[in-house]
Parts: sequence; C-alpha cells; structure tokens
Amino acid sequence: MARWEPDAAGRLAEAAMQLYRERGFDRTTVADIAARAGLTERTFFRYFADKREVLFSGAGTLQEFLVDQVASAPASTPPIDVVAGALAETGQLFEQRRDFARHRHALIVAHAELHERELIKLAALATAIGEALRRRGVPAPAASLAAEAGMTIFKRAFEAWVEDGKKRDLGHHVRAAHAELEGVVVGTRRPRAPAGRARRGSR
Amino acid sequence: MARWEPDAAGRLAEAAMQLYRERGFDRTTVADIAARAGLTERTFFRYFADKREVLFSGAGTLQEFLVDQVASAPASTPPIDVVAGALAETGQLFEQRRDFARHRHALIVAHAELHERELIKLAALATAIGEALRRRGVPAPAASLAAEAGMTIFKRAFEAWVEDGKKRDLGHHVRAAHAELEGVVVGTRRPRAPAGRARRGSR
Repeated sequence: MARWEPDAAGRLAEAAMQLYRERGFDRTTVADIAARAGLTERTFFRYFADKREVLFSGAGTLQEFLVDQVASAPASTPPIDVVAGALAETGQLFEQRRDFARHRHALIVAHAELHERELIKLAALATAIGEALRRRGVPAPAASLAAEAGMTIFKRAFEAWVEDGKKRDLGHHVRAAHAELEGVVVGTRRPRAPAGRARRGSR
Repeated sequence: MARWEPDAAGRLAEAAMQLYRERGFDRTTVADIAARAGLTERTFFRYFADKREVLFSGAGTLQEFLVDQVASAPASTPPIDVVAGALAETGQLFEQRRDFARHRHALIVAHAELHERELIKLAALATAIGEALRRRGVPAPAASLAAEAGMTIFKRAFEAWVEDGKKRDLGHHVRAAHAELEGVVVGTRRPRAPAGRARRGSR
C-alpha cells in the first residue's frame, strides 16, 4: 500500500521537493516542477491543484489506511488503543520516505500556507477516524476525543521520528508519544497513594 | 476584559451575525454588513480583513487572556491543570455571548472556509499556550502536548456549552471535558489491580 512508484505523481513530488530545497518554495513554479520531472504542466494539473498540494498527495492514502486499521481492530480494544495502534502501523507507509518526510516537515514549519493546509488535512483525518470509531459503536464525544488525542500523538511522534538520529521506526515514536500524552493529561491528576503505602524505596 | 461594548467593531460583528443568519454567509457582502451597522465599508476594513474575520475578532483577546492566566498560575500546578484552569476562566469572557457563540459555531461547522480559519486560530492559540508553559519551565514536548490537549478539551467544552439546555457555564464544561479526555486517553491503560487485591466489594 502506498509503496513508492516511479509514476508521474511520484516523479512530480520528487521534482517539487528537490526544487523547494534548492531554490525555496516561494521561488519554484509549477512549470519548473513539470520541467524537472520531464512532464508537462498539463500533467501536473491532472494530479495536483497547485504546488502546495504536491506535499499532501499521500493524505488520501493515509486516511484510507487509518480508517481500515480502525475498522479491523478487535472489538474489545479500547478506542485510544485502536487509534494509537492504527497510527503505529503507518510506519510501513512512511519507512522508505523518512528523508522526504523530514524535508517536507521542515517546509511545513517554515511556510504558513503549507502549515494551514496541514492543519486542514489533519482535521479531516481526525473527523474520518472519529467516524470510523463511531461505526465501531464508540459514543460521539469519546470517539472525537480519541481521534483528536490520536492526532496530538501523531504530530508529536512524527516530529520525533523525522528528527531521530537513531532511526527508530514511527511505531516506536507513536508508542512513546502516547505514553507522553498519557503522562501529561492524567499523570498528575491520579489520586496519590496514601503516605507510607506502596512508595518505591520505602522499607 | 472583552466586555461587550457598543463600539464599531462590536456593531459590525453583530450586524454580520444578523445578516449571516437571515440570508446566509455566502450571500452577505461587506457592504451589507457596513450598511446594517450604519457604518462605511472603509470603517469595516479598518477593523477586519474580510467578512470571515468578523467572526474571529475575539481571538486576540482570548489568546492574551489565556497566556496571562497560564503565566499567573501557582508554580506548583501541573501543566495540564494550568491549561484547563485557564480555559475554565474564559467563562467570564463568553458568558454574556452564548447566543452569539452558538450562532457562530453553527456557521463554522457549516462553512469549510470558516472552519479552516478556526483551525488556524486554534493552532495559533495552542502555540501561544505552549510557549507560555515553556516560560514556566515546562519542557518542550510536555508543554506542546499539554497545550494541544487543552485545545481538544476546549473544543469539546465549547460545543457542549453552546448546546447546553441547562445553561451551565463554560467552566463546568471545561472540567467535564478534561475528565472525559482523561478517561479516553488513559482510563483503559491504567494497570489493572491484581485479582483479589483492592477490588471494590471483595471481602
């Protein structure tokens, strides 16, 4: 699924990324991208609405993959674990593309218009995941909250993954981010054990 | 702070909301809004960049308020409680404006271009809150995660608040949404007590 193919869309995306890095996003035109890929502008517009969209061509595949994963998780799995499990599995979509993902991430951070589109895509993803959870029978507020929490986990995991010098896979970072979010959201609100009971190191 | 004043910006916002409800967002022009408010288009553009922005005029005040609240929370308060506490306090900004907020929310849900702008404003708010937490000494990943979790809480609380037939205040809904998120993110992952120990009702 979503394996890298030397197809027109893939060649255009690669050409675009090369040019964005060489001369910057703002100074690259659709004509430049098409020429670098050895294709026509007309072909470019068959695949992408504009030069931003090149960086989001995987969004549809990602959404389909996640919705499938959510739908096929065992019925007894709690919603947040369904979502985190699905996100961890996306490692197989991204593993061959860590360099592309790193460069893409740097562009998105640096350009407000790309960041905006990223936000919109992530919101659409959260909606799709929330709907997939509701089809599993998860009630509406919990489904949305689990989907939104999943996006928070995913953003954090993705950032850590693209920056990881040790090249651990995305699944590792999803699990770590889930644990981090857990610690942040509730760690400090857990009722404290009464003094003198079950405290590590006492006795 | 942010009390409703019969000033130009406020009159324009009220006029815009009336017109959006009467004839729809798409069929309302800036000229219509200015005329309804008894002001000129020129005045409109002194306050707002376009007819979408009218619905987001409170974003700056909200951000300033939240950053202030975060900065002034006791040093010992855990980050998520700092954020949730700040969000609960926004009730005082919104209490007089529940009808406006409800109509505004309905418009945002119905119009992709408004929803996009809402996402951008919320992301900016999350960034500002994350930075305010870092200034308190919260390390970077935890600060961002607490801020993002805060936005999830806020969106959920706001929705519940605008729909609440019992008119409970926003602070109530922030606390409820925080508890809901807590239950979703970690409730089911808590290590289960070993069988026969500390189980309610045994003995």
